[in-house]
This record gives sequence, C-alpha cells and structure tokens, in this order.
Amino acid sequence: MKVLLYDTTLRDGNQDRKISLSLADKVQIARILDHFGFDYIEGGWPNPSNPTDEEFFKLIKDVKLKHAKIAAFGSTRRPGILPENDPLLQALIKSEAPVKTIFGKSWDLHVTDVIRTTLEENLDMIESSVAYLKEHSEEVIYDAEHFFDGYKANPEYALETLKAAELGHADCIVLCDTNGGTMPWEIEEIVKKVQTRISTPLGIHVHNDSGLAVANSIYAVKAGCVMVQGVVNGYGERCGNANLTTIAADLKFKMDRDFAAAKKLSHLRQLSGNIDQIVNLPSDVHAPYVGDAAFAHKGGAHIDGVMKVSRSFEHIDPHSVGNDRVFVTSDQAGGSLVVEKLKAIKPGIDKKDPVVASLLKEIKERENAGWHFDSAEASFKLLVYRHLGMVKEPFKVLNYRVIEDKTPQGVSVSQATVKLQVGDKISHQVSEGDGPVNALDAALRKALLPFFPCMGSVRLDDFKVRVLGSNVASDATVRVWTTFGDEHGYWNMVGVSSNIIEACWTAFVDGLTYKILLEDNVIPNAYKHLDVASV
Amino acid sequence: MKVLLYDTTLRDGNQDRKISLSLADKVQIARILDHFGFDYIEGGWPNPSNPTDEEFFKLIKDVKLKHAKIAAFGSTRRPGILPENDPLLQALIKSEAPVKTIFGKSWDLHVTDVIRTTLEENLDMIESSVAYLKEHSEEVIYDAEHFFDGYKANPEYALETLKAAELGHADCIVLCDTNGGTMPWEIEEIVKKVQTRISTPLGIHVHNDSGLAVANSIYAVKAGCVMVQGVVNGYGERCGNANLTTIAADLKFKMDRDFAAAKKLSHLRQLSGNIDQIVNLPSDVHAPYVGDAAFAHKGGAHIDGVMKVSRSFEHIDPHSVGNDRVFVTSDQAGGSLVVEKLKAIKPGIDKKDPVVASLLKEIKERENAGWHFDSAEASFKLLVYRHLGMVKEPFKVLNYRVIEDKTPQGVSVSQATVKLQVGDKISHQVSEGDGPVNALDAALRKALLPFFPCMGSVRLDDFKVRVLGSNVASDATVRVWTTFGDEHGYWNMVGVSSNIIEACWTAFVDGLTYKILLEDNVIPNAYKHLDVASV
Repeated sequence: MKVLLYDTTLRDGNQDRKISLSLADKVQIARILDHFGFDYIEGGWPNPSNPTDEEFFKLIKDVKLKHAKIAAFGSTRRPGILPENDPLLQALIKSEAPVKTIFGKSWDLHVTDVIRTTLEENLDMIESSVAYLKEHSEEVIYDAEHFFDGYKANPEYALETLKAAELGHADCIVLCDTNGGTMPWEIEEIVKKVQTRISTPLGIHVHNDSGLAVANSIYAVKAGCVMVQGVVNGYGERCGNANLTTIAADLKFKMDRDFAAAKKLSHLRQLSGNIDQIVNLPSDVHAPYVGDAAFAHKGGAHIDGVMKVSRSFEHIDPHSVGNDRVFVTSDQAGGSLVVEKLKAIKPGIDKKDPVVASLLKEIKERENAGWHFDSAEASFKLLVYRHLGMVKEPFKVLNYRVIEDKTPQGVSVSQATVKLQVGDKISHQVSEGDGPVNALDAALRKALLPFFPCMGSVRLDDFKVRVLGSNVASDATVRVWTTFGDEHGYWNMVGVSSNIIEACWTAFVDGLTYKILLEDNVIPNAYKHLDVASV
Repeated sequence: MKVLLYDTTLRDGNQDRKISLSLADKVQIARILDHFGFDYIEGGWPNPSNPTDEEFFKLIKDVKLKHAKIAAFGSTRRPGILPENDPLLQALIKSEAPVKTIFGKSWDLHVTDVIRTTLEENLDMIESSVAYLKEHSEEVIYDAEHFFDGYKANPEYALETLKAAELGHADCIVLCDTNGGTMPWEIEEIVKKVQTRISTPLGIHVHNDSGLAVANSIYAVKAGCVMVQGVVNGYGERCGNANLTTIAADLKFKMDRDFAAAKKLSHLRQLSGNIDQIVNLPSDVHAPYVGDAAFAHKGGAHIDGVMKVSRSFEHIDPHSVGNDRVFVTSDQAGGSLVVEKLKAIKPGIDKKDPVVASLLKEIKERENAGWHFDSAEASFKLLVYRHLGMVKEPFKVLNYRVIEDKTPQGVSVSQATVKLQVGDKISHQVSEGDGPVNALDAALRKALLPFFPCMGSVRLDDFKVRVLGSNVASDATVRVWTTFGDEHGYWNMVGVSSNIIEACWTAFVDGLTYKILLEDNVIPNAYKHLDVASV
C-alpha cells in the first residue's frame, strides 16, 4: 500500500521561532510541495485571529494543483456547545478546504486538568466534531494529540478517544507524539495494539525532542501507519517536527515503500534548498541525503575507496536525491583529487606535467598556513587559474591604510584609504565605515567602481572570522570566509593572515577580482546557485 | 550493567569540515569531557603526518584526569608485514595512550576491492595487530569498520573478522555503521546475532546519513552493546557522528540506564555550549534537550497548559539537563535562572528588589544586541557587580588609536596608542603588533603594568570571533569571546560591537579589569577552573 505524505510546513513548521511566513511565501511553498508530489498540504489554522491563514485558503482555491489535497487545521468543538455553534469549526467550513484536520485530546490528564471538562464530554466533542465536519467536507482527518503519552497513562481511555473519531467516520486517525518524548519501540508496540481495536487507516505525527522523530515515523510505518505527517527540513517548535525530507528518502531507499513523491526524489536536494530559501534560513550542510556535506569525502582513505568502488563508502548514489559527491580539498586528500579538479578546468592536462606538482605544493603550503578551501571553491579556482598563468590581474594594489580612533568623548571613527593602479591610471579613494573592515570594503569598491561598473551589483552577503590556534591569542592566525553575491548567484572566498585586516583584504580583493574575471569570461560562468523556478 | 560512553569529538568529530582544532583546543576539550564523566576520550590518530595529534598525546600525559581513559586511534597493520614493522602501529605505541583503538575491515568487498588483499590475510591482520597492541597497552578496542554492510553482504565472513579480534584478545569489539545507511531494526537484529557467536563486550559506532544515528545507537544498547562511541553535539564528516549529547539524555531519561556521566546531566546544556564555543560553531537552537528552543513554548494553548501542569507539554523537566523553560511570547524568559545566579552573588537578595528587574532588563537588552553570557561567566559576573554598584573602576580609558598600514612595498605595519587615567595619573603608551588586535592588546597591557603588577602574569590564551547576522556583511555585529589565564586559572570575557576593534577592546578592558578586581578581593576568587571542576 502506498504511504501518504502529509506536509505541515505551512502550519506546524511555521511555529518555528525562526520562521514567519508571509501569504506569498505560503502560496509559493504550496505550489512547490504540490509539484514535488506530496499528498496533503496543511495550509494553516483558519480563524478570525489568524487572517493570513484565512486569506491563504481563499487564494489557494484558485491555484491549479497537480496532485496535493489542501487541508485546513483546527480543533474539536469546545465543551458544552453544539458543533454548529462553534466559531472555530465554522471557520474551518468557511475555508472550503477539501480536507479538514482537527485535533482532540487523548490524554486523560489533559482533559481533566488542562481543558477541564469530563472524560465523557471529551469523547462526545471528538465524535460530534468529526461527524459534523464530515457532512461538509470531502475528507476529515483526526489528529489524536498526545496519543502516546495518553496511552501510557490510561490505555483504555486513549483507545476510546480513537473509537469516538471512528464513530464520527474520520477518514484517517493520526497518532501524535506531541511532546516528542516517546521511544521508537513504544511507538511500534502501541501502533500495533491500536490496530487490533481500530479499523480506520492510521497516521503518525511526531516531534524531535528526543532526537528520534525520523526513527519514530518510520517505525510507525513499519507497524502499519499509512500516513506520515511532517515538515520539509524538519522545521518546527522546540526541536522541530519530523523531517519529511529525510523520511521520504528513508522510505524509498531503505524500506522500498511506494508513495506519490517517490518518483521525484532526484529533486529532493532542490526541494530542500528551495524551501530553505523561501523561509530564509541557511541550509544545514550536514542534513542527511540533501546537505552540502552529505556526500563529502575528506579522509584520504575514504576518497581512495570511493574512487575504487563508490558504494564502499556511500550508502546510496548521491544523484538519486539530486546531490553530488564532493571531494573535500584538505591536506588529508591526495593528489588525485586535485588532478580531477584541474582536469575540469584544463581538460587533457597531463598528470605528470610539472605544473601539477607545483600546484599541489602550493595548495599544501597554503593549507599548512591555515587556508581552507573546503567551502571556498572560488578561492580554489582563482588559485588554480593564477597558478596556470591564465589570469592577467585586472588591478594592482599600491597601498592601503586604516585608522581606527576612540576619541576622548568615547566615539569610534573608522577611516580607510585605498590606492590602486588600473592599467596606467591611479585610483586613490577614502571612505569611512562602521568599523575598520566596513571602511576598507567601502574604500576598495569606491576605488574600483569607475573602472569596473559590474562592481555596482556585487554584494558582500556574509563574512565569518575564525581564529586559528597559536601561543599568543591576539597574535593568532585568522581565517576570514566571505560570501559575495550578485543577481547571478554567489561565490565564496577565503583569506588568511595573522593580521585580521590583511585577511579580510585578501578575501575582498580576490572576491572582486573573481567577479571581474567572470565578467570578462576569463573564468567561465561558475556561480553557485539554486534555481527555484525549475523544481 | 553500566554503559560506557566513548567520545571521539577530538578524532572523528574533528573530521567535520567546519572544524579544525588546535592543540590547545584539544587539550581544553579533553579536560571538559573528563570533568563531565565520559569514560573514554579518543584523542586523535598519532602518526608522523599528523603532528598535532602526536603532540596531543605527549601533552595529555601530564594532565591529571579524574575519570576518563585516553585512547589513541589507528588501523590494523598493512598487508604482508609484521605488526612490529608497521610504522602506524609503532606510532600508536609511541603515543603511550593507555587505550589503543584500531579499525579493521569487516566487509569482504573492502578487503578484495579497496585494500586489495586476501580474505585470509585480512583476518590475520586483525588478530595479529590486536594481539601485538595488547602486549603494549592496558586496553585494546577493535572498531569493526563497515560491520553492518559487511554482515549484510557476507555474514559468515563478517563474523570471522570479529572472531579474529576476539582471538587477539580485544577488550571490546565495536560494530560500526561507517556509511550510516543501516536501519535501526537491522542494527538490533544483527547485534543480537553477533552475541550468539562473540563473547567479547560489544560497542556501537554509527553515522547519521539516514537521520537515524541516535536511534541506531540506543537500539544497539537495547540489544546488548555496552559501549557507545559518539561525538558531543553530533559533529562529524558528511551528516555527522552519533550525537552523544542526545544519546546520554535518552539513555538516562528514557531508558533508565546507568553510566558514569549520568550524575552530571544537569550540566548537559553547559557541556554542549562550551564545546560549541571551543570549536567555534553556533549552537543549534533546536538541539534536543540542550538547544535554546528545546523547551520554548510559543502557542498560547501550550503556554497555558505548561503553566497548569508542566508535564502536559514537556517530556522531561528542563532543569534536569541544565536548560530552562522559555515562553517565547513573554519577556520573562530565563528570569528564574538569573535570580538564581544573583542569589549566589548576593545571598538573601529579594526577588522583588527593583534592582533585579533593572538587571533583567539590561541582560535582555544586551542579549538582543548579541551578547551571550552562557560561556562567559566572568562577563556575566562583572555585569552584575557593576549593576549592583559594587565596582569602583580601577582605571578610565581616555582614548585609543590603531593605525594599520600596507606600504607600497607590501609590508603591513600595525601600531596602537592607548591613553588611560589611573587615579590622578595619566598613562599614555604606544605599541606595535602583528595586526591591529595584537597591537592594541600590547599597548593596553603596557599602559596598565606600572600601576597593576599583576598584569605581568596575565595571558590572553584564546580569542574567537563570531560574526552575527546583518544585511551588510562587513557592517555586521561581531561577538568576540576571549579566554584569559594566569597561574590561578582562567576566565572568559565577551565583547560585542559592529566594530571588531571595539568588540576586542571591550573584552580586553573587561578581562583585565576582572583580574584587578579579583586581586583586590572586590570579586571573591572566582576563576573559571573552579566552575569547570564543579561541572
């Protein structure tokens, strides 16, 4: 039987404290999730205090989806009123979403001590709310909140709550580990027990508070659940929701289970990156299957092994999830790796060409001095192009000066001057800034702009400083890692020195030189970027 | 039976492409891991091409550890030679580490196609290497690389390799999921099968490529493994190693298993943050148990529920791992924690004293501006003492200036001047340095030394820079974190500014002020080593 993937990025994922989705974000994400083949997209909790979600359900009605069903989220009716008089159930119906998902209480403690009603009334709240929504919907899904904690506290009552949802004709009953504290063996055992009493199809919804959300989800599937609720990239409140990106790959590659999105898994990395981009969070380089580092090999023995027999050091083919093998350029990596990269730049170069040996020597020396090319492919390329004599430097630095003053009034003033030669012209500029690095950056761009108009569109998106070890800390080697960007994409540069200003300066000069060389087609277009439209 | 926790942060964790540990970092981490109660600390792979690790084993011999055993890592002998002629085994012995951990091949594919020897020779390589090391060590641990993949491909051969290690008298045999692709139910089943054939105690070492490293580790323990190898915070190559922080908490709170560090779990968050700080990576706010958000409640219903019955929405008590409940919508976040710390400084202070509210407000403002006191207890203390009016500043800064020059000859010159007032005396000094930070540090000490002879013994042991987010990268907020030390211990200071020089300056001035206040007994002896000892 096919597994149904139910995505709640737009609702539970949006509870992540780092995320706050606009209406446009939500619609864009819904389109991407649909395109990828998820079966259900939970759009939000429509109610008068949540106007973005109400608006979302209006807008999404006019979006032509390929496959996914849109679900609106809510709760069972309040105690003591009829469903038709409950404003939140009315808001659900008003959303016109084809699927309504409501949660109810499974844990007796919650019934008596949190919502403070009777155990009997709670059962009726579940049955009557599900039955009422069924009259007005294609499909009703019942989320049994805190089911596992409830089952452990009072199994009979927890099962009765599910029975109530079944009597109300729920299409699927989803067992939730709301607090994220349940162990996978408990999940497996309880799901099996539930199936002896409940014939409605079951789903699973778990959180990652014990670091086990992926395991708990797949154990539930193994035990018989046919729906998995989760969030792309595992965003969510506290420690996050179950990571649907990882679960989808585990279901396909490790458990051989079928689901609608299974045929799209070669776009999994793209899906993950695109959603990260829209929610505006940096991608996790270590993310299973889809991270930049997921198939990065560093140790020399590993690289050697992968080159001989790839499956010897890779659990799946990286291309099956749209990822790629990376040989990390580190001092542990042998020469064969550098030769491979060199061949991409200069096809047909002979391994025994003396330039290969001298390049290897230079890389080794740089790495010993603290250079780290792993996450700075552009720095590596610039080094190779320069080493091969393929670069005519577009400008020459004559000098710079930075003055940093703390005045007796306690005011800080940063000023930088930069003097360059471009052809036979001299460019000498001064700039102030917020700190010495900012002043130097500003003065360098000011000096280059008249000669290289492309500088106008270059942004410095990020820069990070790492202090490497030494005996005297303030005299330690400093590595600066920068991300430059423009309308075409981004590129990373690294700079190393015992002097932080000089390390920044090296990275800035190289980053802007690289842009000029791209613009002049000395280096063929080699931006790093994600293409949202092509998912 | 107690579970043994074997930490490999210094070896396998250091394979993380974002991490490159200095010798000083390694020693500092080893001390912290020992204080926390880990049973084994794998220090590195000593061999001539890895001088940092060779040096580490020399240094660590003179460090008095409370509990942990130091392990040196290596591999079985090469094919076709005797163990006594293998340079890597000799390097292991030379390390004088009491425990030697060596890996060998379990997967027939690796034997024949990667290291290209015979299946028989591989068995002898394992047995003879383990036996040889046993003659020269207190304890030998055998890591069965790719064991699960090997078992799935050829169970009989994989078991024979373990038998060889057993015949060599290995003290523990560790089953490795090197490629990270094995499912927890496979781990459980295979560990159980191994125990029918092998009587040596078993361990587990897994990677997170399927998002299941925590689950795989705890299933292995459930099935009978008595040692867990992992890395604090789950750093490591590709998708990381098994996260020992999460595993320790799961073992104690979910499985009720005993281990030496179990009594230290109320310091788990501190451990995690301290190691993040030393490897210079931002802490994962979503990390299970220890993340900033792990017990953060956002939804109104959740907050209401927690206030009524805390276990209704929390799987464990946050204080049991040194974390705290956070209400995201409320300003009272962490308030009770601050009051607790305040009471340690000024016993008997009334919670309702207006100074408590104003201090909380100042801390909140600082944290919003990027200050982070978690790993800078001395900064926090100085802030409190100043806020309570208990500090008379020992000196006053009148001004400073830093000039950074790159000459036309390409030479860098850094010069700093510092002007201070001490009582009614003025001290005005100039110093050159290797970079602006070093020059400023030197000038400040030079200006203070005549008045405060204790400055002569203060070292700046470490300083780390973290760039916090902003729209313009070179104008971003910078957080500087410093470690000062002298013959009595060490203390950490943090400084924040959009100007890197100013951030360093703040940390330097505070760090040296703190030392003067300790010397004058304004602040009672509160060196950091005392805090660490109490972990």
